[in-house]
Amino acid sequence: MKGRIGLGIDAGGTNTKLVLVAESGRTLAAAAIATSPGSGPENFVRRVVKRARALEREARLRAPRACLGIAGDVDVGLGCLRRSPNMRALEGYPLGRALSRALERPVAVHNDANMAAWGCYAIELGRRRPTVVGLTMGTGIGGGLILDRRLYTGATGSAGEIGHARVAPGGELCGCGALGCLEAYAGKFGIARLARRIAEERPADGKRWRERLSRGIEPLELARAARRGDALALELWRRVGRALGVGLVNVVYLFNPDAIVLAGGVAGAARFFLGPVREAFRGESFHAPFRRVKLHLARGAELGARGAALYSLEE
Amino acid sequence: MKGRIGLGIDAGGTNTKLVLVAESGRTLAAAAIATSPGSGPENFVRRVVKRARALEREARLRAPRACLGIAGDVDVGLGCLRRSPNMRALEGYPLGRALSRALERPVAVHNDANMAAWGCYAIELGRRRPTVVGLTMGTGIGGGLILDRRLYTGATGSAGEIGHARVAPGGELCGCGALGCLEAYAGKFGIARLARRIAEERPADGKRWRERLSRGIEPLELARAARRGDALALELWRRVGRALGVGLVNVVYLFNPDAIVLAGGVAGAARFFLGPVREAFRGESFHAPFRRVKLHLARGAELGARGAALYSLEE
Repeated sequence: MKGRIGLGIDAGGTNTKLVLVAESGRTLAAAAIATSPGSGPENFVRRVVKRARALEREARLRAPRACLGIAGDVDVGLGCLRRSPNMRALEGYPLGRALSRALERPVAVHNDANMAAWGCYAIELGRRRPTVVGLTMGTGIGGGLILDRRLYTGATGSAGEIGHARVAPGGELCGCGALGCLEAYAGKFGIARLARRIAEERPADGKRWRERLSRGIEPLELARAARRGDALALELWRRVGRALGVGLVNVVYLFNPDAIVLAGGVAGAARFFLGPVREAFRGESFHAPFRRVKLHLARGAELGARGAALYSLEE
Repeated sequence: MKGRIGLGIDAGGTNTKLVLVAESGRTLAAAAIATSPGSGPENFVRRVVKRARALEREARLRAPRACLGIAGDVDVGLGCLRRSPNMRALEGYPLGRALSRALERPVAVHNDANMAAWGCYAIELGRRRPTVVGLTMGTGIGGGLILDRRLYTGATGSAGEIGHARVAPGGELCGCGALGCLEAYAGKFGIARLARRIAEERPADGKRWRERLSRGIEPLELARAARRGDALALELWRRVGRALGVGLVNVVYLFNPDAIVLAGGVAGAARFFLGPVREAFRGESFHAPFRRVKLHLARGAELGARGAALYSLEE
């Protein structure tokens, strides 16, 4: 088993990252191209293949297998994207087959949050914890599940949709149309709305935020403000933490994981929102599962692409 | 594989059931004894062994393996009950080892809701659906998970605690001390409290219930009233259904199961509470997982003991 390498490809709506990764998880070479889904699936495959070949040539390496992680609802059996709001043009196209043929090796296709969760399990936690729930906190909130050391994807490949589990039934409107999803409180748009609500409740603090809030504020900006000690921003992250606390309490009761790993840009503000999560865990009377679970912040970069590269070696 | 039989033992706080089951799931012989946990673990083991031997003698059968399903937090590796509020006297005793020695065969020990879920998967659904969430609706709400045809129990054996996932954060007080657990709305005590609340809201309807409500009404009584068309009872089950709807929407987003099986006494009132659950499922914009999941009502009896018998053949 030692010495094998994997090729991982992580396709988001904007960029597609390519990495060659050693079995240890170490990145040996990396590159990126624009995804440009609008130019069509054949064009996407051609550009990915060209960049992957160049990457292997430059690194003087060849991965025997590859895996593509892609944002959206994936049919793993057919190796295609069933549905992806940001990459409509790639839907239904046999990406796995086309990539396998052009790269002359097996190429699997998986959901990107699942591959990031595999990266959390295999790289961040070194496979030391058998059951890991990975959350990718970015524009939306993705989830991936490693249960008893195996990727679990459910009956239609949509297991682990933690972003749409309810944390406040009847509460804030989510982009999916439902009320009270975790994403409506801890996704990018939910966070901006929470900031506006707090600014309205606290006109004195809110005044200095008004202009920025009306433009649609980024979580990163609110994390910086919290670092400066801004009262509005600190209150915002406390509320994000309370919503996340409800969601993760439910995750612990249902999955009883060894670890929950938080990855993605929003996880960078964890020091401001993890307090209420830990407080929620301490308040539960079922001690064993809450004492066992480790809350881990992902430090590594490109966990999606690197997770895909390592997962290609599993199958 | 054909022709094997298993011995299943299902120990609740009051009664312990014993069954010999064919690999098909058919019950070949059955018996029951009082659990009487207060008489101590050695006494419990002695009586179980005596009854199991008599059962096999009467049936002229011998199961090569047995499994005990027991209500509480089970350490599967040690074969003992870590914690069980109704069977304190059996906590910490090596039940698996003692039963194995006396019955001269391997005896595994598992949580009873997990064994009932195995019965749902193997008997009710004939192993045709690989991923099954089983809910046992009785005094409390237990859950068991069969994921990709394997029993999943989590890092400390407490996965599937659906009864304590939040369906209304900040809502009604649960026996566990938290606010808004599913059990606080759809467990026996939660149902009785909901009935009292509705009686208070609707004094005209509530009057004829007052006396029964003050005694602590049973779910069975409220199911009978609903069958008679009683307005208070019908409203009660609608509210139970709305709470269960939130809980099961979360279960679908997290596990994406092929089937959810409802078992236990309270599931007998399903025709009065399944409407709001189906409505909640129809309202979700992620169609694939909600179209796939089958809501199934368990028809078979003794799924806990029979599930344990069949599970003994798995290991």
